[in-house]
Amino acid sequence: MSRVYNFSAGPAVLPEEVLKEAQADLLDYKGCGMSVMEMSHRSSMFDDIIKAAEKDIRTLLNIPDNYKVLFLQGGAYQQFAAIPMNMMNKHHKAGYILTGQWATKAWKEAKIYGDAVALASSEDKTYSYIPDCSDLPITDDMDYVYICQNNTIYGTEYWELPNTKGVDLVADVSSCFLSKPMDVSKYAVMYGGVQKNVGPAGLVIDIIRDDLITDEVYPGTPTMLKWKTQADKDSLFNTPNCWAIYMCGLVFKWLLKNGGLEAMEKKNAEKARILYDFLDQSKLFKGTVEKKDRSVMNVPFVTGDKDMDAKFVAEAKAAGLENIKGHRTVGGMRASIYNAMPKAGVEKLVEFMADFEKKNLK
Amino acid sequence: MSRVYNFSAGPAVLPEEVLKEAQADLLDYKGCGMSVMEMSHRSSMFDDIIKAAEKDIRTLLNIPDNYKVLFLQGGAYQQFAAIPMNMMNKHHKAGYILTGQWATKAWKEAKIYGDAVALASSEDKTYSYIPDCSDLPITDDMDYVYICQNNTIYGTEYWELPNTKGVDLVADVSSCFLSKPMDVSKYAVMYGGVQKNVGPAGLVIDIIRDDLITDEVYPGTPTMLKWKTQADKDSLFNTPNCWAIYMCGLVFKWLLKNGGLEAMEKKNAEKARILYDFLDQSKLFKGTVEKKDRSVMNVPFVTGDKDMDAKFVAEAKAAGLENIKGHRTVGGMRASIYNAMPKAGVEKLVEFMADFEKKNLK
Repeated sequence: MSRVYNFSAGPAVLPEEVLKEAQADLLDYKGCGMSVMEMSHRSSMFDDIIKAAEKDIRTLLNIPDNYKVLFLQGGAYQQFAAIPMNMMNKHHKAGYILTGQWATKAWKEAKIYGDAVALASSEDKTYSYIPDCSDLPITDDMDYVYICQNNTIYGTEYWELPNTKGVDLVADVSSCFLSKPMDVSKYAVMYGGVQKNVGPAGLVIDIIRDDLITDEVYPGTPTMLKWKTQADKDSLFNTPNCWAIYMCGLVFKWLLKNGGLEAMEKKNAEKARILYDFLDQSKLFKGTVEKKDRSVMNVPFVTGDKDMDAKFVAEAKAAGLENIKGHRTVGGMRASIYNAMPKAGVEKLVEFMADFEKKNLK
Repeated sequence: MSRVYNFSAGPAVLPEEVLKEAQADLLDYKGCGMSVMEMSHRSSMFDDIIKAAEKDIRTLLNIPDNYKVLFLQGGAYQQFAAIPMNMMNKHHKAGYILTGQWATKAWKEAKIYGDAVALASSEDKTYSYIPDCSDLPITDDMDYVYICQNNTIYGTEYWELPNTKGVDLVADVSSCFLSKPMDVSKYAVMYGGVQKNVGPAGLVIDIIRDDLITDEVYPGTPTMLKWKTQADKDSLFNTPNCWAIYMCGLVFKWLLKNGGLEAMEKKNAEKARILYDFLDQSKLFKGTVEKKDRSVMNVPFVTGDKDMDAKFVAEAKAAGLENIKGHRTVGGMRASIYNAMPKAGVEKLVEFMADFEKKNLK
């Protein structure tokens, strides 16, 4: 079979060019006689790989010098604990904005370690919008304010960062990581699992302002969850997920070669526009999210009829449009159109939707 | 360049046949049109991969039904915390046998969570032997006794398990994992990072007797470090290191095809015999470990002259014998001869050593 168009929410499509390079070098990386998977993480070859990856992500996001970049394991979920363990160290209090399952899980985990306050929630409408964040009940005694910047399940995205009233902002950017330029200096911590928009699963990248990397952590914090452990050793305190770091490094080079995040932002906006424009005129399909809060990465849509949704998902799969089924809490469909999804994939999806609509609209 | 013989202690050599299969399927796994790196961990394709991996490791190690197999992230180091957090729940006390750096690090981490008692140590002779473990000061109020079964840095291995006087045994088997048959029922927990003898870095496999998987964990245990979290979800609580699970699965199939762990034990014993026999008659090189405690996996040796060691390492590298330099705390050389190291690699090493000795022995 040839390659399909893979609309999976994550793990997700990777650039074909990157996969081909990894394939070519799989048994013999750059003539060194071994696979990247077989290299000591202490070798000069791997050191070149991880240093280049860090340098390239710093270039892509224009990361200020006073931020550390950490390549960690355990997924975003592990950071749900690491964030309060490392940051709830002054007032043992933080504010969380609840825009979906992931933000809510992060909030519940933080409650183990201190006073995690729900500042706002969009649960009343199945998280189909981003709450007004211009004047939230944020107080000086909060160690940070937490958001999930793009909500994979619900297809919402913050187009403006919350007014945190001077309190440090922490953002889970898993599903919009490297989708567009972001001003890192506006965040205290920006972090994300790479398995959505960046690389293979098993790696989370934390970008942390260096004054937050400290020994003042929650009592009983495991050595591996203390940010300082890995920061002091440039992510090589113990053996990292070397293969994922290598793959992300290849993706970073692919992004740089293709115009960086400015070019990616344009391409992503164009892809999203094609899909949303179709949805806005369709008589069968409709989007589930308030227009002002629509994500450029994850596009949920429904027909309003469960059987029709199921028929669409099955026929789309048969046509090489894979993983288009929506999350069970939203139902219907979801197209995740990350960086590596070509415009042709979105065009094919829209063409297929138009054709399906013609055949099925009564 | 053709493939080298890679004696790295980990990440380490993988079977060439396995790497070739991964390479062939990299862009299109079994005709599904996508890479394993691009698959949803909730897809039926990945479900087949992880279920097959679990089934095959159960077959290889003959794992009893009352043991859970977990595929986790964070390396053995993260388990250094998870073990006391999950197991020091009755008496908040455990015994540790200190046979090297890794056992000592595990012991120090456990001290965060309870009374971790050093039962014995071989530090007096740079961990070059395994202490007598027939009558250690183990008491009924210990929640477990902990060992590192094969010591990667020092090249020692337990050939008999300690007499734990009825207390549960926990073993880090990272560097001897799947090197030979082991009786899982003698352990409460057997676990190891896979990046030495099994697969690529970023995955640790825990084999845990199911009565130890409980809600009675240390207060403040992160959700991700509580074994029950992943046990309840068959290692899919959040996105795992899918690629590493896939690669380990291929290695398990390679092991089964090649006669399982019985055949591997014979092959490994033969490889180690070739190298130790050479060391025992050499006038230039000598092993650093008490003969009775020698590891079949990691073989440290020295000339006794630092300059000569460095010359050997450099010339070996030039001859395609890579990563033979010893750990800085032992010095000299170390040949890690894991499952995937062919006998021809060890023979070439010994031939090279004999030739080097002839040229350099004054």
